[in-house]
Amino acid sequence: MQSAGVSCLINMAYSLAVHGGAGTILRSTMTPELEAAYRKGLDNALNAGTLVLSQGGSAVDAVEAAVASLEDFPLFNAGKGAVFNHIGKHEMDAAIMDGSNLAAGAVSGVGNIKNPVKAAREVMDKSGHVMLVGAGAEAFARECGLEFEDDAYFYIEQRYKQWQDAVAEERVTLDHSEKKFGTVGAAALDSHGNLAAATSTGGMTNKKFGRVGDSPIIGAGTYANNNTCAISCTGHGELFMRSVVAYDISCLMEYKGMKLNEACNLVVHEKLVRIGGEGGLIAVDKFGNVSLPFNSDGMYRAAITSGGLKMTAIYKD
Amino acid sequence: MQSAGVSCLINMAYSLAVHGGAGTILRSTMTPELEAAYRKGLDNALNAGTLVLSQGGSAVDAVEAAVASLEDFPLFNAGKGAVFNHIGKHEMDAAIMDGSNLAAGAVSGVGNIKNPVKAAREVMDKSGHVMLVGAGAEAFARECGLEFEDDAYFYIEQRYKQWQDAVAEERVTLDHSEKKFGTVGAAALDSHGNLAAATSTGGMTNKKFGRVGDSPIIGAGTYANNNTCAISCTGHGELFMRSVVAYDISCLMEYKGMKLNEACNLVVHEKLVRIGGEGGLIAVDKFGNVSLPFNSDGMYRAAITSGGLKMTAIYKD
Repeated sequence: MQSAGVSCLINMAYSLAVHGGAGTILRSTMTPELEAAYRKGLDNALNAGTLVLSQGGSAVDAVEAAVASLEDFPLFNAGKGAVFNHIGKHEMDAAIMDGSNLAAGAVSGVGNIKNPVKAAREVMDKSGHVMLVGAGAEAFARECGLEFEDDAYFYIEQRYKQWQDAVAEERVTLDHSEKKFGTVGAAALDSHGNLAAATSTGGMTNKKFGRVGDSPIIGAGTYANNNTCAISCTGHGELFMRSVVAYDISCLMEYKGMKLNEACNLVVHEKLVRIGGEGGLIAVDKFGNVSLPFNSDGMYRAAITSGGLKMTAIYKD
Repeated sequence: MQSAGVSCLINMAYSLAVHGGAGTILRSTMTPELEAAYRKGLDNALNAGTLVLSQGGSAVDAVEAAVASLEDFPLFNAGKGAVFNHIGKHEMDAAIMDGSNLAAGAVSGVGNIKNPVKAAREVMDKSGHVMLVGAGAEAFARECGLEFEDDAYFYIEQRYKQWQDAVAEERVTLDHSEKKFGTVGAAALDSHGNLAAATSTGGMTNKKFGRVGDSPIIGAGTYANNNTCAISCTGHGELFMRSVVAYDISCLMEYKGMKLNEACNLVVHEKLVRIGGEGGLIAVDKFGNVSLPFNSDGMYRAAITSGGLKMTAIYKD
């Protein structure tokens, strides 16, 4: 996705934000080694996305690369690190949206696909549909030639213990024993002025009944529109779905003329709080501004802009 | 759901709109008998909802009753009349939303549940989740004691022939040999000032890959909010999802101060048309106004208000 020449670029400005989930993430329960590992996972994702953006690549390619990197990183609840569901399987969801043409793709309840975000991308580019679920989505991903992995690839001892503990207590949890919303995501503005967002998740430990959260729902957990912003959410999925969070921020910008930060803060710190919706999101607007609001104790997050911003953070303070 | 006394009612005004799908519906391809049958199906649904609303019942109960009636009617592509998917099964989606508290429930890819809208209602009321899919959603519906029917109940010769024709031509169609978006839905305002919406569909004839359309997606095909309106959509699902149609109308009212008709017309006759999104929707606002816009040749639709409006219509003119 090299550009044909500098002359076709409006500017070389780009922005990228990534997250690895929000929730009860406290310094008191973290070791220096674990914190360093989480930061490494976020930095890897920034690097993967920046490699695309700095060469004039598209926002869609950048968020796909960043989320695939987060999926490959075992500490985040997506892809390789996906939690175990009620029957000991990994049931994953992902979505991607291209703000330049409002194209979107999503998969839900898929197993054994190495990178669910790549399946979402294929749905967007090749299926003629927006959302495919379960065995049908897996069959489509196979037809597209995507990489599959056996259950052993997704086996992580810590996740297995979390599941066994949850089964023993008949509990359904979002990620860890702490309240943590295991999701990963990316939002980007490319040097052509196009926005894109992607989200991926392994869902809830010990989940039953084919529950779908906000991550693969266009408008709820994932949304991008060149007129406004690109958003990827992480939080209590049900409340994010009922609030249509990602599109709400876009509408507050487009219809009320709010700035990115203003819209994000209203939705995350006021509207979601009023209905008990814990979590956060990452957002990039068409000017390259970045907003990373969350109303929980922490959110694994990182951002980079061609203007010189580079940050990685975990806690609230 | 009788009210305790007249004093607790703000007013006795109510409104109800229902639809049985939009698309290429032309007088030239309709017989008087078939037209009368469709009108009967719509009237049945209005009656089922009105029975609830006229006694002071809730909008949620009314839209559930109206949609269940449409699901039981064999000519509409939902419930009993659901089309055949690629493997000769009936894979149905439904959603319901309560505008008084933004509670919502949805099921997707479910088979053999007699009334998918009732499963969506149980998801909303009892599951702690918003969306359940596939076998998990069916298991949940069984635990709730919902009625199941065998495949024979869903067998309708005309649908079977449509499927066989589609298989022979390797074609995926939305409902009939004509371009028709087979969906049913209802939107209501009750006498307590609460809004609700519900949608149900049998999806696309010969569909593969577990495709999910807009019907069960909160914000896309179904949305209700007491501050604004209640909406149920029918159309080219993918474009309705990418446009987050139902919530877009709500946002245009809430953030731009548009009236119901103005917001509906902008979305259906301008925004959707620009991206080739054929279809329509039914909408009721908090004042009891009704809007039934569509950009296709026809839409099976009907509405009633306590103020005296009662209409049933099929074609554009």
